Amino acid sequence: MRLSRYLLPVSKESPADAQIVSHKLMLRAGLVRQTAAGIYAWLPLGLRVLRKIERIVREEQDRAGAVELLMPTLQSAELWRESGRYDAYGPEMLRIRDRHEREMLYGPTNEEMVTALFRDAARSYRDLPRILYHIQWKFRDEVRPRFGVMRGREFLMKDAYSFDLDEAGARHSYNRMFVAYLNTFARMGLRAIPMQADTGPIGGDLSHEFIVLAPTGESDVFYHSNWERPAALSAVDFEDVGGLQAIVSSYTADYAATDEKRDPAREAEAGAALRQSRGVEVGHIFYFGTKYSAAMKLSVQARDGSDVVPHMGSYGIGVSRLVGAIIEASHDEAGIIWPDAVAPYRVGLITLRADDPGCVALAEDLYARLTAAGIETLYDDRDERGGAKFATMDLIGLPWQIVIGPKGVARGVVEVKRRATGEKQELSPEEALARVSGR
Amino acid sequence: MRLSRYLLPVSKESPADAQIVSHKLMLRAGLVRQTAAGIYAWLPLGLRVLRKIERIVREEQDRAGAVELLMPTLQSAELWRESGRYDAYGPEMLRIRDRHEREMLYGPTNEEMVTALFRDAARSYRDLPRILYHIQWKFRDEVRPRFGVMRGREFLMKDAYSFDLDEAGARHSYNRMFVAYLNTFARMGLRAIPMQADTGPIGGDLSHEFIVLAPTGESDVFYHSNWERPAALSAVDFEDVGGLQAIVSSYTADYAATDEKRDPAREAEAGAALRQSRGVEVGHIFYFGTKYSAAMKLSVQARDGSDVVPHMGSYGIGVSRLVGAIIEASHDEAGIIWPDAVAPYRVGLITLRADDPGCVALAEDLYARLTAAGIETLYDDRDERGGAKFATMDLIGLPWQIVIGPKGVARGVVEVKRRATGEKQELSPEEALARVSGR
Repeated sequence: MRLSRYLLPVSKESPADAQIVSHKLMLRAGLVRQTAAGIYAWLPLGLRVLRKIERIVREEQDRAGAVELLMPTLQSAELWRESGRYDAYGPEMLRIRDRHEREMLYGPTNEEMVTALFRDAARSYRDLPRILYHIQWKFRDEVRPRFGVMRGREFLMKDAYSFDLDEAGARHSYNRMFVAYLNTFARMGLRAIPMQADTGPIGGDLSHEFIVLAPTGESDVFYHSNWERPAALSAVDFEDVGGLQAIVSSYTADYAATDEKRDPAREAEAGAALRQSRGVEVGHIFYFGTKYSAAMKLSVQARDGSDVVPHMGSYGIGVSRLVGAIIEASHDEAGIIWPDAVAPYRVGLITLRADDPGCVALAEDLYARLTAAGIETLYDDRDERGGAKFATMDLIGLPWQIVIGPKGVARGVVEVKRRATGEKQELSPEEALARVSGR
Repeated sequence: MRLSRYLLPVSKESPADAQIVSHKLMLRAGLVRQTAAGIYAWLPLGLRVLRKIERIVREEQDRAGAVELLMPTLQSAELWRESGRYDAYGPEMLRIRDRHEREMLYGPTNEEMVTALFRDAARSYRDLPRILYHIQWKFRDEVRPRFGVMRGREFLMKDAYSFDLDEAGARHSYNRMFVAYLNTFARMGLRAIPMQADTGPIGGDLSHEFIVLAPTGESDVFYHSNWERPAALSAVDFEDVGGLQAIVSSYTADYAATDEKRDPAREAEAGAALRQSRGVEVGHIFYFGTKYSAAMKLSVQARDGSDVVPHMGSYGIGVSRLVGAIIEASHDEAGIIWPDAVAPYRVGLITLRADDPGCVALAEDLYARLTAAGIETLYDDRDERGGAKFATMDLIGLPWQIVIGPKGVARGVVEVKRRATGEKQELSPEEALARVSGR
């Protein structure tokens, strides 16, 4: 993409209303704009990050055996009356009346709707187990929306729901999601630790929060240094019940707790291995048994002909929130440092002199070759000062920068910079291509 | 995907509340379920079609030079007061009050919001021209939602907005979208004809509707037989102002009109070349000058230092509506016939006997090879009667079926059926793979 044809309103100044670093950087780097309190438009660069995150989440859900569907944003109040939550849910639920005065709401979550859909579709034990998920905008009418997309009102969430014939099956579904989450966050370059959590108003008796470690995170977390192991588990067999349980048991054996859940005895036991950091919650998984299936009269025929009420769980990932969480975990003074897997473009290509034919010719040639090689490139072809272009590239945090200046052109070299380390190398255009392609 | 792990609630009976064929087939084939009046959940198979259509729309928008962003579903009333449309828009606008009694609405369209975003981002002539688009859920509170996703209340729309320094530039942007639309619909296997349209409440003085020909469509259309030419124009240079205008002029030279816009003189002129059909509107493009930019005080600095108010246009495609439109245009007695480009899976693989080890072994082997070759396959591995499996495959309309039965296995052959023609061939597994891969 040529910057001369893009929409990237960057700014040097830190916006006055932004308190945390991810919010500041998302505004400064032109990723989002607030359009109403706690509601954001995703500008082109921000949308690309959001889509990369969404894709990773989707791939790992699919790999774990979940099936994607898409439920609408608006729901009928009737549905929520079936579970009893319509009256129980507080003012965070945005209630709406349509032109016929029918009571509607903007879905904050989808337990009721997915239970109704499954009730309509499933007849017998052959239709279970299933994990259904969707990635859809939700709305929670926060009284004080803040921290940008980290605590917005309209937000993108992946929510999955499992249906099993019994508790043992539900535990396996829970484990599928547990391990899928470890992989999901690891692929984004994040260290995310599952921590025992209260189940809150959603109900149930087994629950973990996934917390990303970020020095500027919202809450204190405490964990054993064993958590500093690599978390990617790509060779998992999700059908292997025992194997999956062993992974989950191994990962939950080590101490990790939020501030509210600290355990002095286990911290003493950890001793010098105890670590403290700050964190951002990016996922939350629950097993809640037959809470919704019983209330909403979902049952299927068991193998022996009897009726059985499925056991359920739900599994959320804050997709839009992750954009902020990743920035909290990965930035410096100059701006964002995107992990490769979620970077909006892999390479930023800069011409130092838009009026120098040699610079422009080499830049155009490299841009064409990068594009042909399938390397996503943002090409700053504008007639701007070099200093402003450097600052913009550092701010928006693409993993690689290639800088083309008249002096280098004369010597047949370009400068390649790795954003994360600041390391710079002078390379021939061919070497630069190979370097940034990572092949 | 194995059908034994999928969610595909098909039904033999035609639902009583569905009046048109696409609505009936979408319910019967388990593509969608209504969750409230005019609001649908997209089940796994339907979602795949929706995403394929969305991807084609996106690729053709990108090719034409449009830049993608994503605006939120909810908007503030304030924004619509700036254009004067908050009070002017009728009861189709879903008006909402949040917990602080702020007036909000569920966006039926985004002229105001995109104008505000561009006003915030653009400073000078260098920032123009631009075409910005998004693909987002919209809501229009139809008094009588009907025809399934064809006239639903919550629907997925691609809406693009162009910003140009003058009318000539705006005309070029209009032409970009005009040609992009020809390509978009052609890629979906549709014959879509642009027809002069009234601009309606959105305003402006240049507008075309794109109408897909479908024997069961909602309205009568009349056109010259020249429209029966191939419409794909993949080698277009979208930067070539004159070339693009020539394409548009050529395409609009031939007569085509909806029932309300018929021209007896031109129909007489067409004579024997006049065709009549029925059609479904799937796109609508408008040029409306400075209507919104002037009302909302969007201006940029011109090259000479003066202020200039950009000329705008807007360009919609009904993404979710297209799922229905394609079915209207492509079905038979037995069910849907998906064009290859939008089919949820390319191949349906059937084992006739789930209790025959030879059938199962060959089916599993072929499934693995199809998947490894990147050919999207829905594998009916369930223990069901052959007749029910055939009926389901015809109903859901995948382009190719591969049937594996005991007699064929004994002779080393499988049956390959092309859904659109019904043509069947006995082929070796290797030949079958080559046949369905289309390579």
